[in-house]
Amino acid sequence: MRLGLWWKLGLREWPGYIPLIPLLANYDRRDFSHDLGAGLAVGVVTIPQAIAYAFLAGVPPEAGLYACLVPMVLYAIFGSSRQLVVGPVAVSALMVAAAVAEHAPKYSDAYLGITTVLCLQAGIILMLLRLSRMGGLVNLLSHPVITGFVNAAAILIIVSQLPSFTGIEAEDTSSPFSTLSGLLANINTVDVATLAFGAAALVLLLLFRPLALIVLRLVVPTAESSHPLTRIGPMVAAITAVVAVAVFGVEDKIAVVGFVPPGLPTLAAPPFDPELWLALLPSAAIIAVVSYIESFSIGTTLAAKKQERVNPHQELIALGAANIGAAFTGAYPVAGSFSRSSVNYYAGARTPVSSLVCAILVVVALLFFTGLFALLPHAVLAAIVMVSVVGLMDLKSSREHWSIYRHDTITEIVTLVLVLFMGVEIGLITGVLLSVAFFVRTSSRPNITQVGRLGATEHFRSIKRYEVETLPHVLALRIDENIYFANATQIENKLIKRVQKRRGTRHLLVVCSSINMIDATGLRMLHRLNQHLIQADVRLHLCDIKGPLMAQLNETDLLGALSGDIYFNADRAMRKFANELDVSG
Amino acid sequence: MRLGLWWKLGLREWPGYIPLIPLLANYDRRDFSHDLGAGLAVGVVTIPQAIAYAFLAGVPPEAGLYACLVPMVLYAIFGSSRQLVVGPVAVSALMVAAAVAEHAPKYSDAYLGITTVLCLQAGIILMLLRLSRMGGLVNLLSHPVITGFVNAAAILIIVSQLPSFTGIEAEDTSSPFSTLSGLLANINTVDVATLAFGAAALVLLLLFRPLALIVLRLVVPTAESSHPLTRIGPMVAAITAVVAVAVFGVEDKIAVVGFVPPGLPTLAAPPFDPELWLALLPSAAIIAVVSYIESFSIGTTLAAKKQERVNPHQELIALGAANIGAAFTGAYPVAGSFSRSSVNYYAGARTPVSSLVCAILVVVALLFFTGLFALLPHAVLAAIVMVSVVGLMDLKSSREHWSIYRHDTITEIVTLVLVLFMGVEIGLITGVLLSVAFFVRTSSRPNITQVGRLGATEHFRSIKRYEVETLPHVLALRIDENIYFANATQIENKLIKRVQKRRGTRHLLVVCSSINMIDATGLRMLHRLNQHLIQADVRLHLCDIKGPLMAQLNETDLLGALSGDIYFNADRAMRKFANELDVSG
Repeated sequence: MRLGLWWKLGLREWPGYIPLIPLLANYDRRDFSHDLGAGLAVGVVTIPQAIAYAFLAGVPPEAGLYACLVPMVLYAIFGSSRQLVVGPVAVSALMVAAAVAEHAPKYSDAYLGITTVLCLQAGIILMLLRLSRMGGLVNLLSHPVITGFVNAAAILIIVSQLPSFTGIEAEDTSSPFSTLSGLLANINTVDVATLAFGAAALVLLLLFRPLALIVLRLVVPTAESSHPLTRIGPMVAAITAVVAVAVFGVEDKIAVVGFVPPGLPTLAAPPFDPELWLALLPSAAIIAVVSYIESFSIGTTLAAKKQERVNPHQELIALGAANIGAAFTGAYPVAGSFSRSSVNYYAGARTPVSSLVCAILVVVALLFFTGLFALLPHAVLAAIVMVSVVGLMDLKSSREHWSIYRHDTITEIVTLVLVLFMGVEIGLITGVLLSVAFFVRTSSRPNITQVGRLGATEHFRSIKRYEVETLPHVLALRIDENIYFANATQIENKLIKRVQKRRGTRHLLVVCSSINMIDATGLRMLHRLNQHLIQADVRLHLCDIKGPLMAQLNETDLLGALSGDIYFNADRAMRKFANELDVSG
Repeated sequence: MRLGLWWKLGLREWPGYIPLIPLLANYDRRDFSHDLGAGLAVGVVTIPQAIAYAFLAGVPPEAGLYACLVPMVLYAIFGSSRQLVVGPVAVSALMVAAAVAEHAPKYSDAYLGITTVLCLQAGIILMLLRLSRMGGLVNLLSHPVITGFVNAAAILIIVSQLPSFTGIEAEDTSSPFSTLSGLLANINTVDVATLAFGAAALVLLLLFRPLALIVLRLVVPTAESSHPLTRIGPMVAAITAVVAVAVFGVEDKIAVVGFVPPGLPTLAAPPFDPELWLALLPSAAIIAVVSYIESFSIGTTLAAKKQERVNPHQELIALGAANIGAAFTGAYPVAGSFSRSSVNYYAGARTPVSSLVCAILVVVALLFFTGLFALLPHAVLAAIVMVSVVGLMDLKSSREHWSIYRHDTITEIVTLVLVLFMGVEIGLITGVLLSVAFFVRTSSRPNITQVGRLGATEHFRSIKRYEVETLPHVLALRIDENIYFANATQIENKLIKRVQKRRGTRHLLVVCSSINMIDATGLRMLHRLNQHLIQADVRLHLCDIKGPLMAQLNETDLLGALSGDIYFNADRAMRKFANELDVSG
């Protein structure tokens, strides 16, 4: 009951490390029909996607399906999101392919072994991030960096699918540019049958959602555009393609998936080779961080719609467990899937039980229907992948934000270009460094605003924006930034200049309402400024110091050395200075 | 006249690029006696120091004296500080020795050639920093980084002088640790005569200032402790040593300076070798930045005492010109000298004319007195260097700041240790990155304070620190930080938790008085928060938005999407909410 209350409050900070237990203990039977329907809908979307992403990652098709079993169940047990569906995703698949390609040939056993090492490392890194309470580090990936990265990844994925889509062989697929130039060089080798299957699937997938919606609304006039039935395009495309291959008997003429071993995955430890482990570590770290951000942002988005919350710490554990599970069951790195989580949400999932239903569907497919997958053409899988990733792209934000968020737009474009040209690691790291550099740059050029009394109130505002009242012998300046090493000299110079410019100034009142922190460099600067002003016969006063800053300054010798006083607020300071004028006048 | 006025205002932002011209045009003859006296005092300090630092840098003694000619004059022409004396300094000498030692043997012609390349590169880099308006970048070197670096440099310099001081040979002097272990291994080879000269000079230098002051006060009872005569210890030590070497005839038994070619430097271009230039570039960049910071901070300190100011842009030009001048006259990298600038200031220098006087003294020494330098023992130069750098050390600040500025102290210690163990470049770069990381870390964990009305005033302060009045259905939270990528998620989570915890909240009022900037990630977060709160039937309001931020937000779609309103300040918002309560109650 207590736990049920926690759950309902949406807090769930400490319902234990296994959220599924209180959830099942309080499970409402009426929820089951919703979870069952959602689980089936997700399953239908998952199976063709799993095979398509396995193909993109360079692992055998069954590895994609295995990624929907143990990892999905582990996330359902440990995850704090009710709607997130974890499993194979396009971005992780791309990063796996980039990391493993140099160590082993695609679709080989060695390749799969290396992939499970990546999984295990990513899982361990996520767990370590939780244990060391460093999960907050992922916040360094700003929105523009993520957008730039996702757009670049979508471009990379689309280009990587073109050879399979057209049947043209590109010798060098190490970069999107070499792939494109290879395609252009061999354009005469285009395989018409392959392209026909690919193009037909592409058209079907693109038209499926609007057409399905029209048909659906003939039956149910109130159906929403997010209805789960509009999402089963990939399954329809896959089944249609398999039937077509069988009917026309073209399985030897075009590339198809081929034999998929029936049955469930066997438990096996990833290979241990210290040199390989060390070589994979940077890629694993990036995969871990990107998977976490992707999953967390999808989970938060869906939770917000139901006024629920996702626990960022618990998500590290859940995603870590899912990846470790993937490592031991011959799968590849998993993350929260945007498309399948959306289907789950809109199909009405109420608890992670829907993920368990989906996993059962995958088990059934692995036991009885692997024969059908054999005839699935690669070109159709390529079409499924391409259409999926187009949905991830966000080309709007950079155009919208240029005028006001120039720094963010530059960061986004640099990240995109570097991920395309130099790889994921360099792109993301440069993006983060650039975000930080822009932030420091902005805060190193603070606004310093002269303020005055607003009418007869106790409020002090900018003399440029409001009709305010000032005193001739007092210069009241509000510093709109923390005072720290990157701006201390700048602030010192500006304050001295302002005092020098305004003749007759006897008091400099620094309004500290916007200052949250003063570091050692800033403190030293204030001492220097105070000394400098003493020589110019100007007294330095501070006001509106916030509690935490005041507690800090009390520990230093600044307040004692100050030529002026500390005032509670600008109002009291200015009243004092006004009296002084009355007395002397 | 106009220019004279500019000068007197201490502004001098644009008196032209050559401050010496207006200065000489307005030169007051009465200033000359002051400048003459100061120039002579500085000259007496300069000559032994120049030879000692040349010895430390690994260049011939005359190169040290050449560094006091053209560079000093060029700085006098272009510099914006009136008291700064530019020339050879200990820190630059150390960095030169570290950078050049791997390319050529010390005291060789090749070594000197490489040193002039460093000079030229450093000069060009300073000019480029000015042209690209990037001079502000040096502000990234926070006070703790500089302190850590200077302390480490002082330790390195002292250790580097021990072999000359004791006459013990240390085979491997590549690091302070190998030098020390070499000294200990060969301690039985200590040269008693060398050590006697060194120790005698050390004792004389350490006792000179207090004794000189006592003697001085017998004559002039009001003499200050900073009197220039207390600074001539090095000259007294050098003359005494030369006399002693001549009297005892030990010039063949201990290491002495030896032949110094009389005459002035000849103009010569530094050697051009692209590979060498590329190899030296990182060292040159570090030397340029460190020289600039050292000079600028000394210049500012002295200018502040006279309520004058130093123009940071002009200083880049002046120091750049001085180093380029050094490159073409066979000298080594120059910077503002702390000890000699202090002598100049306390000896009463009023304009850079004192530097010109000092340069004339150096010319006289080079033309007529080089023979005397030949007998100067290395051990005495080592003593002069060691005593000089001890004055640079600042061991107080880290101890004082530990309790309140933990981050700054850690940065200082890490910089010190890395400079000692890994070299200047790695130490400084790590120090800067650490400063930035700590700053981002602090700002990623903002204070969020609930505020209420203070008595009957219009002021709103923390409910924890003051007796304030709140409304039951309104939660007023002040966010004490800019909202940006590193803290957006954190702030979102905290705000939602606070709303959930406080039952009955219908309005969330975010007090923005401490927010100077909201980036694209922060804007997105506010949109998400707004949506989230709408679903919980809580309205989101903003108040106390500062002008520049308001202008920025007006360009976005946030204000339109907001479920609540924008209030001028918390007072007006709370009065509105209170009315609402009256109506509904």
